[in-house]
Amino acid sequence: MSATRRCYACGSRETGLVARCSCGEALWLETDADSFDWNDVIDAPGMWRYESLLPVSAPDGLFAAAGGTPLVREPSLDAFAGARVHLKVEGGNPTGSFKDRGSALGLAVLQADGREEPAVDAVGTVSHGNMAISTSAYAAASGLPCVVLVPEDIPESRLETISQFDPTVLRVAGDYGRLYERTLEIGPARDIAFLNSDVPLRVEGQKTTALEICESFAPDAPDAIVVPTSSGGHFSGIWKALRELESAGVLADVPRLYAVQAAASAPIAEAYDRGASEVSRVERGETVAYSIGNPDPPSGTRALAAIEDTDGAAVGLEDPEILEAQRTLASEAGLSVEASSATALAGIRRLVDAGEIDSSDDVVAVTTGTGLTDHLGSGSADLVEIEALEDRLAAFRDD
Amino acid sequence: MSATRRCYACGSRETGLVARCSCGEALWLETDADSFDWNDVIDAPGMWRYESLLPVSAPDGLFAAAGGTPLVREPSLDAFAGARVHLKVEGGNPTGSFKDRGSALGLAVLQADGREEPAVDAVGTVSHGNMAISTSAYAAASGLPCVVLVPEDIPESRLETISQFDPTVLRVAGDYGRLYERTLEIGPARDIAFLNSDVPLRVEGQKTTALEICESFAPDAPDAIVVPTSSGGHFSGIWKALRELESAGVLADVPRLYAVQAAASAPIAEAYDRGASEVSRVERGETVAYSIGNPDPPSGTRALAAIEDTDGAAVGLEDPEILEAQRTLASEAGLSVEASSATALAGIRRLVDAGEIDSSDDVVAVTTGTGLTDHLGSGSADLVEIEALEDRLAAFRDD
Ligand SMILES: [Zn+2]
Ligand SMILES: [Zn+2]
Repeated sequence: MSATRRCYACGSRETGLVARCSCGEALWLETDADSFDWNDVIDAPGMWRYESLLPVSAPDGLFAAAGGTPLVREPSLDAFAGARVHLKVEGGNPTGSFKDRGSALGLAVLQADGREEPAVDAVGTVSHGNMAISTSAYAAASGLPCVVLVPEDIPESRLETISQFDPTVLRVAGDYGRLYERTLEIGPARDIAFLNSDVPLRVEGQKTTALEICESFAPDAPDAIVVPTSSGGHFSGIWKALRELESAGVLADVPRLYAVQAAASAPIAEAYDRGASEVSRVERGETVAYSIGNPDPPSGTRALAAIEDTDGAAVGLEDPEILEAQRTLASEAGLSVEASSATALAGIRRLVDAGEIDSSDDVVAVTTGTGLTDHLGSGSADLVEIEALEDRLAAFRDD
Repeated sequence: MSATRRCYACGSRETGLVARCSCGEALWLETDADSFDWNDVIDAPGMWRYESLLPVSAPDGLFAAAGGTPLVREPSLDAFAGARVHLKVEGGNPTGSFKDRGSALGLAVLQADGREEPAVDAVGTVSHGNMAISTSAYAAASGLPCVVLVPEDIPESRLETISQFDPTVLRVAGDYGRLYERTLEIGPARDIAFLNSDVPLRVEGQKTTALEICESFAPDAPDAIVVPTSSGGHFSGIWKALRELESAGVLADVPRLYAVQAAASAPIAEAYDRGASEVSRVERGETVAYSIGNPDPPSGTRALAAIEDTDGAAVGLEDPEILEAQRTLASEAGLSVEASSATALAGIRRLVDAGEIDSSDDVVAVTTGTGLTDHLGSGSADLVEIEALEDRLAAFRDD
């Protein structure tokens, strides 16, 4: 289990639960994929089909339910997007978002016999959104104690959702944005594995999104994958999977990776636009896509490297076009996604306009989380007497 | 597509969109399963693997994402339940509940070329819960107009969730409990296919829950399947699947079917207890498991027949034991389910106590819907200054 960590940027190797290279960049697990082929995929549930590329085998229970989400062709969105749309529906995970892949892999490794050195006996996370819910759920399933650090002003309803899994929740007074860095020190000092958004174990789980996409298309490959991007952890995992499949020689062509962000807080898109090779902190602006509004993404520079490596791009989207894409996903495709996920569809449309994506391209939009837990803030209904119902129904098709 | 409907009770056959036999019982589709074997299962997404047992082939988009939900062995619940627990996690469906199977099949048939006679060009449903959300979503994906009949006092948040899929929502003043019967007349009169909870097309989709369970266990079979039961439509679909697999000779032993209800509104359990062969309307009581609180289940008598045929039982559960099971699912297994789904786990415990289920039995609890959209009403968190965080974390494992 004590897999070697490697730095994508400088090539350094580390062992143990360390998350960052001395060069400052995030580490990921070293995986020997050279001999992999699709016949190595096993008949295991969900994300555990790729056993030979993962550091741990399929556990049971909730773990077995992670990943294995639907990938569907959605022609009804082609006109809106301007290309051939496929949706990777991550809302199908047990806690409703892609975060389950990383939580499941991380907790499975920590739970396994022969835990990482130095021994940890607890997990933690800095989140008040999907990652907090997901980490708490898999910690419950693993039996490990879990601490969730949330901001002081967390809404009561969110606290209730997290609390059902019975973690220790601490509201932290002070600069919540500093907490990610603080946990890099506190975690090792207190033997707590902080499964933050871009730590090696989480990224390793997140790579299965791309393994599933590529297996579905094999022996072909999609032309592009469009990913709502915040910390850059999921984006890094997807890139890592593509590199592994490429090194194994099983990827017809490497799909271009596109990072989509909310313009109000788009550090990766801004760095991309100015041709920078490093991402810098930006001011946090308000956006409907609040769950991807990270102004200082810890794996932002790694995401830029992925974009360059795959000939992709990054784009920041305005709230009206995000909301229009969200409404279109629900009313045309019947799919409810959170606003941050709708950036994937809005992003395709923008990237087609910009000439980055061609109308004949097969493009996978990763819809990262369900919208059923969001409230969209509009709903109205006529009141009808039951006796008058039949007449009212005669005409409803014109509504 | 104009498959024959057949009455399980008197054997009568009907064609067209009729839902009820002249004897009063609900019809279901006639399926010739005698030559089916597991090799006929095709490599299609989700519930569409069982093409030879279904009246329509896999469509794309949202339809392809229905079903195919996780079935996981959950040893951490064995001690609580008293038997070997497996969970069929229906919250993994795109709208978060088992209703998607019936909605997907119903809309797929109606959308297909050569629509049923008499022609319908719209769908409807009488629901303000999971069925309303699900029917609206698949109607949006199909392009067919949809009308949702909700009670006058529907909460605003529920209205918002339904409305995102853009159906026509009508609040109906008057006796909402009478509406099911009214739609049996209004539907045919106004060319609207009301996909209510136990109509033949919905039941046909719901049978795929059991097809998936049995395929996972094949060549063995689970000893029992425990199903939260309201109208009896899902329970009927599961029974239909077992009959088909039995007639095909591919089921080692027919699992016993157990219907679990909330005691406050348990017409099927009450009829079972008094040895009746027909279900009678009861008074509606308040329960935390509100989404299975149907006091007059249209397929209740059919559910009783399924229980008798499979040597199962029905049981009504009190709110405290339902809530305890819900908390246990979240805190031990990491799975968030709505209260009505938790009756499945609470039911196993009761049925073990009653000697109906043995401690060595493999029992599948069908958790019918996600709890992430519910609010569980409890959540609290200590407030910690960021400077004091490390000390606070030294001790959190004891919380
Ligand atoms: Zn480095
Ligand atoms: Zn009959």
